[in-house]
Amino acid sequence: MRKVDPVKHELKRGEILDAAIRCFTRDGFRGASTTDICTEAGISPGHLYHYFPSKIAIIEAMIDLGLARSAERFEKILTATDVIEALLADIEETSLRFRPAQILNLDGLAEAARNPEFAKIIERHTEAVRRMWADFLRQAQSQGRVDPGLDPEATANILIAIIDGSRAMPIRNPKLDIKQSTAHLKTMLIRFLSPPEAGRAASKPRDQRASRPLTLVRKR
Amino acid sequence: MRKVDPVKHELKRGEILDAAIRCFTRDGFRGASTTDICTEAGISPGHLYHYFPSKIAIIEAMIDLGLARSAERFEKILTATDVIEALLADIEETSLRFRPAQILNLDGLAEAARNPEFAKIIERHTEAVRRMWADFLRQAQSQGRVDPGLDPEATANILIAIIDGSRAMPIRNPKLDIKQSTAHLKTMLIRFLSPPEAGRAASKPRDQRASRPLTLVRKR
Repeated sequence: MRKVDPVKHELKRGEILDAAIRCFTRDGFRGASTTDICTEAGISPGHLYHYFPSKIAIIEAMIDLGLARSAERFEKILTATDVIEALLADIEETSLRFRPAQILNLDGLAEAARNPEFAKIIERHTEAVRRMWADFLRQAQSQGRVDPGLDPEATANILIAIIDGSRAMPIRNPKLDIKQSTAHLKTMLIRFLSPPEAGRAASKPRDQRASRPLTLVRKR
Repeated sequence: MRKVDPVKHELKRGEILDAAIRCFTRDGFRGASTTDICTEAGISPGHLYHYFPSKIAIIEAMIDLGLARSAERFEKILTATDVIEALLADIEETSLRFRPAQILNLDGLAEAARNPEFAKIIERHTEAVRRMWADFLRQAQSQGRVDPGLDPEATANILIAIIDGSRAMPIRNPKLDIKQSTAHLKTMLIRFLSPPEAGRAASKPRDQRASRPLTLVRKR
């Protein structure tokens, strides 16, 4: 048996994943075949199976990679001074502007609604993201920065839905005013999440704002 | 040339559209071929072309049908006594519970991000829906029922994004608590849209509510 160099193996795996992402973006999770992925990666089907036993294994690895990247972005958002500001900057960068993420996200959701194997992958990914959001919301509630009347799990589901929906915005409207959309999303999130009485003051333009600080700013 | 009975022609067209919707739900806009649609509808390809010249023509007709149905639902929402309540009932029925709408909506958006011909159809549909929402918001602003500080077009885009995102919620989480999700969406929309000072009172549970009426209730 040939000895496998683990560094080379990992690099090749990464290359195949990149090729698969290009294929899925172009032809969809359903439309792109393992043959297409081999052609795109410049390898033979026999060679592919040294790295991934099936198309679903490639997708699993892609989702794991996506989840690791989400966790990193999430860590950055949740440790920011102003969490809402950081979330909006992330939505603007990865959802309102970044086309491949939009396609793969929407296509993955549609495929999950049809294919139970795919659905399990999406559910696992969503559960991990929901846990991160719900933990943050619970902590922010205990610090008086988020309305304690909101259920953390239900609110986390809605935040995830807003991110999903924001990915569709530039597809529905290619002339979308991104700055204005981000500003309106921000107003909505601050009004929704802020504790009673603080929401309206916090979402006013800066010069009209009451002396009370933005309630979603992290207390240090 | 054979004489065409317009009533029979319209009926057959409707049957083909229904068959196409089943195919697209199962295999995607990209995956389902005209051959699949003919098989599902029980007609020959030659026969199909009496009704639709191409797959894109079938999709156009499907979107037109969808738009006509949206316009009807919209009319119902916008003439309701409580617009937010009516919108939420509609989201619950058509987005949170109705799987074909979830699949076709997400798949259509993913396809629009890849295919310029498809993108034009989605843009046209979105523009019509956005115009309906923006007109309503403008009217509600002039009656003091919606915050005049919100831009009607930008707010309409966000409402459409929330509907898109809500369609992904039960796919991401099959155990979703639909009642609780609807209640949280309602709280968010009321707090977002209500004029300054009214938002918090309106979104409190009924027994804590100030005497001021729900601001999004239509003035008669």
